[in-house]
Amino acid sequence: MTTSDTASGRRSLTAIVLAAGKGTRMRSDLPKVLHRIAGRSMLAHVLAAAQEAGATRIAVVAEPGREDVAREAAAAAPGARLYPQAERLGTAHAVLAARAALAEGDEDVVVAFGDTPLITGDTLRRLRAPLAQGAAVAVLAFEAAEPAGYGRVLTEGDRVLAIREEKDATEDERRIRLCNAGLMALAGAHALALLERIGNDNAAGEYYLPDAVALAVGDGLPVAVVPVDEAEALGVNDRVQLGVAEAAIQARLRRAAQLGGATLIAPETVFLSADTVLGRDVVVEPHVVFGPGVEVGDGSVVHAFSHLEGARLEAGVSIGPYARLRPGALLETGARIGNFVEVKNATLRAGAKANHLTYLGDAEIGEGANVGAGTITCNYDGVNKHRTAIGPGAFIGSNSALVAPVTVGAGAYVATGSVITDDVPADALAVARGRQAIKEGWAEPKRAAMRAEKEARSRKG
Amino acid sequence: MTTSDTASGRRSLTAIVLAAGKGTRMRSDLPKVLHRIAGRSMLAHVLAAAQEAGATRIAVVAEPGREDVAREAAAAAPGARLYPQAERLGTAHAVLAARAALAEGDEDVVVAFGDTPLITGDTLRRLRAPLAQGAAVAVLAFEAAEPAGYGRVLTEGDRVLAIREEKDATEDERRIRLCNAGLMALAGAHALALLERIGNDNAAGEYYLPDAVALAVGDGLPVAVVPVDEAEALGVNDRVQLGVAEAAIQARLRRAAQLGGATLIAPETVFLSADTVLGRDVVVEPHVVFGPGVEVGDGSVVHAFSHLEGARLEAGVSIGPYARLRPGALLETGARIGNFVEVKNATLRAGAKANHLTYLGDAEIGEGANVGAGTITCNYDGVNKHRTAIGPGAFIGSNSALVAPVTVGAGAYVATGSVITDDVPADALAVARGRQAIKEGWAEPKRAAMRAEKEARSRKG
Amino acid sequence: MTTSDTASGRRSLTAIVLAAGKGTRMRSDLPKVLHRIAGRSMLAHVLAAAQEAGATRIAVVAEPGREDVAREAAAAAPGARLYPQAERLGTAHAVLAARAALAEGDEDVVVAFGDTPLITGDTLRRLRAPLAQGAAVAVLAFEAAEPAGYGRVLTEGDRVLAIREEKDATEDERRIRLCNAGLMALAGAHALALLERIGNDNAAGEYYLPDAVALAVGDGLPVAVVPVDEAEALGVNDRVQLGVAEAAIQARLRRAAQLGGATLIAPETVFLSADTVLGRDVVVEPHVVFGPGVEVGDGSVVHAFSHLEGARLEAGVSIGPYARLRPGALLETGARIGNFVEVKNATLRAGAKANHLTYLGDAEIGEGANVGAGTITCNYDGVNKHRTAIGPGAFIGSNSALVAPVTVGAGAYVATGSVITDDVPADALAVARGRQAIKEGWAEPKRAAMRAEKEARSRKG
Repeated sequence: MTTSDTASGRRSLTAIVLAAGKGTRMRSDLPKVLHRIAGRSMLAHVLAAAQEAGATRIAVVAEPGREDVAREAAAAAPGARLYPQAERLGTAHAVLAARAALAEGDEDVVVAFGDTPLITGDTLRRLRAPLAQGAAVAVLAFEAAEPAGYGRVLTEGDRVLAIREEKDATEDERRIRLCNAGLMALAGAHALALLERIGNDNAAGEYYLPDAVALAVGDGLPVAVVPVDEAEALGVNDRVQLGVAEAAIQARLRRAAQLGGATLIAPETVFLSADTVLGRDVVVEPHVVFGPGVEVGDGSVVHAFSHLEGARLEAGVSIGPYARLRPGALLETGARIGNFVEVKNATLRAGAKANHLTYLGDAEIGEGANVGAGTITCNYDGVNKHRTAIGPGAFIGSNSALVAPVTVGAGAYVATGSVITDDVPADALAVARGRQAIKEGWAEPKRAAMRAEKEARSRKG
Repeated sequence: MTTSDTASGRRSLTAIVLAAGKGTRMRSDLPKVLHRIAGRSMLAHVLAAAQEAGATRIAVVAEPGREDVAREAAAAAPGARLYPQAERLGTAHAVLAARAALAEGDEDVVVAFGDTPLITGDTLRRLRAPLAQGAAVAVLAFEAAEPAGYGRVLTEGDRVLAIREEKDATEDERRIRLCNAGLMALAGAHALALLERIGNDNAAGEYYLPDAVALAVGDGLPVAVVPVDEAEALGVNDRVQLGVAEAAIQARLRRAAQLGGATLIAPETVFLSADTVLGRDVVVEPHVVFGPGVEVGDGSVVHAFSHLEGARLEAGVSIGPYARLRPGALLETGARIGNFVEVKNATLRAGAKANHLTYLGDAEIGEGANVGAGTITCNYDGVNKHRTAIGPGAFIGSNSALVAPVTVGAGAYVATGSVITDDVPADALAVARGRQAIKEGWAEPKRAAMRAEKEARSRKG
Repeated sequence: MTTSDTASGRRSLTAIVLAAGKGTRMRSDLPKVLHRIAGRSMLAHVLAAAQEAGATRIAVVAEPGREDVAREAAAAAPGARLYPQAERLGTAHAVLAARAALAEGDEDVVVAFGDTPLITGDTLRRLRAPLAQGAAVAVLAFEAAEPAGYGRVLTEGDRVLAIREEKDATEDERRIRLCNAGLMALAGAHALALLERIGNDNAAGEYYLPDAVALAVGDGLPVAVVPVDEAEALGVNDRVQLGVAEAAIQARLRRAAQLGGATLIAPETVFLSADTVLGRDVVVEPHVVFGPGVEVGDGSVVHAFSHLEGARLEAGVSIGPYARLRPGALLETGARIGNFVEVKNATLRAGAKANHLTYLGDAEIGEGANVGAGTITCNYDGVNKHRTAIGPGAFIGSNSALVAPVTVGAGAYVATGSVITDDVPADALAVARGRQAIKEGWAEPKRAAMRAEKEARSRKG
């Protein structure tokens, strides 16, 4: 495999990704290929696989005028070009929407599908490999547990004879379990000619990509079959299948994290994004959700019920349970975020702590500072956002509010229950609250009055 | 099937639900049929299926004097009548506890079980269908993966000969995998006569309902067998089986929600109630619990770790992560509830927001109002509950407390950290907090004193 | 079995636990046997099984100088002795590191592995049972679904002939599916002699424990084979397998809790510790994590998303959703902890309540007291921890802070938003907050100013 891989690696490759499917069964206003798996659109998964397989040119065939698909393609594969598919006349017709890309004459062509998101870069590499060894066409095929409905791959020894649609198959052919996964590789030298000869003389009046096989065989050209697991070939047509695809990708991501040295106590309850990075000896308790853009340093602990997105944890950090880290959260070595704490666009320097019921937004917390329970950084005045700065070693008393923009100096104290509106100098104490007063014997008459009100209410009600 | 369904639909149907089982293996003080699945008792599930199958009369056979069972039956199927079963002498004897219902002469009779909660209305409809075509008895049967312990259904071609209990079966009969699920349909014209002829001449001295089959066959009456999946026939006898039944119903509910156009990113971690309604393009993140009475409008997003019960979300609402919506929560279009926020008996008008660490109880939040982090509506004075009203466009500063009954006018501001006890006029600012004071150089001597205390403690300790 | 069990029960037993494996594939700085399952190290699981099987002497063979392993062994099995294994020359060599223990002459010897954590005490008891009936060696063996890689157990009728390593096996022998689980029981009278005769004349140059079988057979001594499920014999070599082992132990714990009378609505989402105790008619909602040391009394309800560790709940307690109970939490009968509430080292007396957004640390809450939303016990001054005492029937208004050490008397009220720094007498009202002031017409010019700032910013940005 290595030899052919290396060979493939040097050859130019056009990847054509069909992404125009309406996805009626998704029952969605969102184009099917933009539905997400592991925090990334299906289209982006397929584009990533194409890039891993060495695509030097990427053509995305999409419904005309879909700005959202264009944006997603550009973000996932800069340089990808969109080709509008005005009519829907079959897969071969869809591929020919990218005729201009095919005409560029790359050595290899691979056709992939935006709604077949589990196909890996490695599989696409295996699919194109026969081209380097002279095949004109390679089809990806799987042994189906239940083949009914799929096109069967007819073979004789090593040779592929044709792909037979279910409805055209004989009794004997229907017993064949090797099925067409849909994806295809074509030698650039033959691709356009084969595709243009595909006709639509069939019940549905559609131009079928698999017909390229019979045409190639008819021309005496070699056609290869490349095996793939049935699970990897899953096409997503409704949200049940979307859920199955999500589960498959999660299983891959979890396994990779575990083998890399992270303990997922209950991997089936931990949801990762495609780009999540977990260091060595990281421990993740049950029930954790990693959105996109999270990196967790060595030896850090993510306690149960935590939710992270766009956050970076250095080594030896502890968060949760019930920690919510939003984009821009940076926790330096040994920092600690406890339960019911939200951090957004904020840095906690080494050893800083916020352990309970706190909101830190647009803030910097200095080294070793301690943020008491119930602290709120008031970063929003209803119109603008402002920043809070807490110095190293400062101590913020519980139930305090820091009205940004505001700075608490190094080593300063904020008294419990204070509303801090002005800067606090280093090493000072800031108090902003009422004095305690006592009214002796107040409670019993008050309780009597409240009970009387209750009775009055229930008489009325 | 349609023909017979329609025919059944016009015939009168008595459904007899046996609900007197003690359920010793549940190890519970609660009657077995009141244990809940997907937020609804097992009894209520079976009564719902009976109603879907067209029951015109419902008889619940229960342990005498169980007020809780009576209440549940009345709530789930108004008009259902309870029949006490004083002695426990077998299933046929139990059915005869509802002799008065049988004597009413309905055309069809179906016997179901309160601890077989997965049986659907459709299955009961299929079970009664043969009656419309002349069958005297129809038995529900499944192909068992492991038949040991079940009564076997003996057939010859299409004809049912008998149901043979395991212990009476020959070697050959034990090899039969078609097993009796327990549920039975009887033609009203024959039901009472057949049931009264069932004897108790067997090892256990019990009156067995399945003996109706042999009696009908002996009379030359047609007996039909209706197939059902083994999983659907599950009887719940302990809490492991209760958990299996919950999982089965959850799988049904999730699948229906997905096919209806809601994305459940990790369906296996989302728990629905039987009456949960999710709109089109709703996205539900992993780890969400829907209690009874929840409706989520189109395009709304329920972030991870949210818990909803008795709540209605209109279109385009976003809640969570960690949103807790309790009964009476109403979130109008585009409203937003963030993390660690509890809403109870409160309305958020269009575009209103409460994003962090807040409790809104017995309140109305006006259109576009912004409720700051750490805000508490103090609705309870220890005896009575009172309401809070926040006007459109109002801004409640963080860490504020609104002591109900109280009104904040349209466009008004409440300053951070205020305790609001009096109404705030529209467009006014309300401040209720202490002024900030600074004591320079206070921190270092204080830290020294605290350290000294620590040392003194550790010398003592 | 009972007879031999009783016989075994009276015989002395040395259990040798091999715990020196490096566990390279764990990619961890922690020794493999210290990785945790259900809140307990793998080593502790194996030591518990050895104790259940009646071990009268426990020898742990460990890497020299591992203080952490020594501490764990001492905690899990007081009296266990550690034996350093300096060189790694094979399993027989490892067992002989505990030669001094073997020389004590106990009647039975069992060899277990610190990375085979699913083996139960009952299995070890079954493994040693043949010794009481004259066997010199007993091997634990399982029918492998996929035997490749395991040593095969060669038998003739009841007799064991040898254990054949995969690489030495003939074609025919490789078809045998009965595989060696690794664990072994040896008669004390023969153990040392057999072990010392094991050589290292094989490809790897290692001293293999299974070679004891062939030696015993050669001596004409009886060798028994004891069956075990393949799943129970799982060895943990990487974190994927650690996850599988966790799932297996969780399944056992959940099933036991369910059969004992607790409802786990979604058992697959509830994580228990090996020592979790759940009473009768306890209901656990989905998504709950029980750390070590939790006991839940009859009829209590643990709502979704709760996290408990070192906590005791008496009967009829309700917690959560989102309750976080930390070590030292004691909730007496009928106490209630609501959402986003953390309790640490604190007692709630009967009927006391803290329903929303609260931190109770180092505190005692009296019978029937009501702690309002957003209350914080300020137990930490940055250096020392102090206690808060709230009397029976007291009412703490919302958003209050209690600065410990402090006492609120029986029946007293704390006004909303107060910071309580001095003791409050019984039945008194304490108020510590600012007075409310109103600035009419303040909002509109303020909003205009903020909008102007926003514009100025966007012009700059």
